[in-house]
Amino acid sequence: MSQGTAPGRATLQSVARAARVSRQTVSNALNAPHVVSPETLQRVLAAVDELGYRPSRAARQLRTRRSHTLAMRLDPFRDGVNGSVLDRFLHALVEGAQGAGYRVLLFTAEDDAGELERYAELLEASDVDGFVLTGTHAGDPRSGWLAERGVPHSAFGRPWDDPAAPLPDAERGAGCWVDVDGAVGTRAAVGHLVASGHRRIAFVGWPAGSGSGDLRRSGWREACAERGLELPDHYDVAVPDGVDAGRASASALLTSALPPTAIVCASDSLALGVLAVAAEAEGAGGLGEGTPATAVVGFDDTPAAAAVGLTSVAQPLAEAARTCLDQLLAQLDEGASPCPPRLLPPELVVRRSTRGARP
Amino acid sequence: MSQGTAPGRATLQSVARAARVSRQTVSNALNAPHVVSPETLQRVLAAVDELGYRPSRAARQLRTRRSHTLAMRLDPFRDGVNGSVLDRFLHALVEGAQGAGYRVLLFTAEDDAGELERYAELLEASDVDGFVLTGTHAGDPRSGWLAERGVPHSAFGRPWDDPAAPLPDAERGAGCWVDVDGAVGTRAAVGHLVASGHRRIAFVGWPAGSGSGDLRRSGWREACAERGLELPDHYDVAVPDGVDAGRASASALLTSALPPTAIVCASDSLALGVLAVAAEAEGAGGLGEGTPATAVVGFDDTPAAAAVGLTSVAQPLAEAARTCLDQLLAQLDEGASPCPPRLLPPELVVRRSTRGARP
Repeated sequence: MSQGTAPGRATLQSVARAARVSRQTVSNALNAPHVVSPETLQRVLAAVDELGYRPSRAARQLRTRRSHTLAMRLDPFRDGVNGSVLDRFLHALVEGAQGAGYRVLLFTAEDDAGELERYAELLEASDVDGFVLTGTHAGDPRSGWLAERGVPHSAFGRPWDDPAAPLPDAERGAGCWVDVDGAVGTRAAVGHLVASGHRRIAFVGWPAGSGSGDLRRSGWREACAERGLELPDHYDVAVPDGVDAGRASASALLTSALPPTAIVCASDSLALGVLAVAAEAEGAGGLGEGTPATAVVGFDDTPAAAAVGLTSVAQPLAEAARTCLDQLLAQLDEGASPCPPRLLPPELVVRRSTRGARP
Repeated sequence: MSQGTAPGRATLQSVARAARVSRQTVSNALNAPHVVSPETLQRVLAAVDELGYRPSRAARQLRTRRSHTLAMRLDPFRDGVNGSVLDRFLHALVEGAQGAGYRVLLFTAEDDAGELERYAELLEASDVDGFVLTGTHAGDPRSGWLAERGVPHSAFGRPWDDPAAPLPDAERGAGCWVDVDGAVGTRAAVGHLVASGHRRIAFVGWPAGSGSGDLRRSGWREACAERGLELPDHYDVAVPDGVDAGRASASALLTSALPPTAIVCASDSLALGVLAVAAEAEGAGGLGEGTPATAVVGFDDTPAAAAVGLTSVAQPLAEAARTCLDQLLAQLDEGASPCPPRLLPPELVVRRSTRGARP
């Protein structure tokens, strides 16, 4: 995780290292000294002196004047089918925040750098108590920037820099986060399809490199491998997201020498395209009672999936929002212990697109 | 519009009446006296004295300390298909606000009374400059409450108390609002269908009493009547919103003695149900290339409509958000003239569900 600071400048991290304590303990020593043991306090303050560390004015203000406001970036409306996931998260977050006496402030930013500028502005004005991050990605500087300044925050989305260590020690300063385990979702999809008699199950996902997409693919692959299912190369399709890409992928799969009887997708957009082709192939109404013989599973349980009867993996968005909020409130409560990151399991919502398909 | 005040208490309205000026002029006299002529200023201040009018502390604070924050109520996620309209409005609002140096603060409320409590809390804390209202309805006390206190606000949705006067004089104190003319949308749908050769066009909408639903119905009815189309009673269907209600309505219509060849719906939810039944009736793929012979038009151009190829009426949500914002900024600019309400025309987005249908 990038710290975004010039070498040599004292940071919360360097103080923590020098005093051989966690960042949280340094933060506690500076902001709530009564919760720190006298020995530790002395060691931290000595390191602060030695290194010349000066916590930012903004972070200090944050501790003394509560605005009862959490801030979150909201991007322009882009992806019709999948964008609704973050909208549903936002609704749950605002509702949960209200219950805890907090409001949610929205802003926009072009990119990470723009978002950090907004953070700085909002902290300068001292009108937020903490931040909710979404859209985490490899090389993401945001959590580090906030941790550096002792600013409470929680991310919906894990830090992707080290996906091999999905549940790091909170003390490492990665900040708090909650994420949904996509691999559990595609595993559940394979389990459901196998239980319905399917043995030839393909996957239509995104090109390697997107953390969440890779996890969704790995869940499908591992679940198939464990059951000894055949996995010819052409069953692993990597395309950009979208209904059209789903159509094209399904056409190729269903006209191949060994067509699958079921297709698991990394998104509902892809699945809607796959479902349309499957329905045409059968001459059955994709929207109607007739079930296409090729079973199709989407991901994210969007309103479009519900409307057309598409089986899909549902993220527990309300629980994710509540967990982010709990993590933030724990940080705002000076004496609270560091909050562990959490991975939530998604749930398969079974609908017409996989019900009664005969492989 | 209810003023929500006890009789006898001096209000902005009563001062305006006594001084024979607009509310805006009273507000200007109190907050930006340099923009008011000396004669008018004297008359207003005399009325303020005489009636003992005391502008609220919150409203005063609002004038002296800008937070560059606008507030809006966000409801819990409810309606999968249609809820996305307000989400898209919110995205556009946040983006436009950021461009003008403002952020958007979200809160929730159980009902109008709860929303007024939130307004009072936020004004007391002096951390908002104005409010954006959504979900306006007959008997809505919110705009009056805010106008009363001289608080800048704008509504996405007209005041429904007097739908016969859709464009009131802004000076009447109804506050600023922008709305989309639903009747224009269903008129466009009928025009498109008639141009495609349809003469038997039914409407599936909500029970009378919802302002926006009544307008959508009136646009269909008037456009059909003007063209001399037959309108048997059973072509005017009133049901609660939802995919299932759409299915049931379409089943009844298509098995009636005089089935329509096209069905215009008050929402995409209803239209998705209608489309499913139309597709089944034809044995064609509703999601596929085959076009059901019964043409179907939805309303709101939701992501689900785009995904399944449903022709739908699109509200200009980005323009609506920009207009709300302009109206708010004009109110925050003391010297600005009152902003007129605006009705925006929606646009028909033509897709597979009405393309090539042969009546």
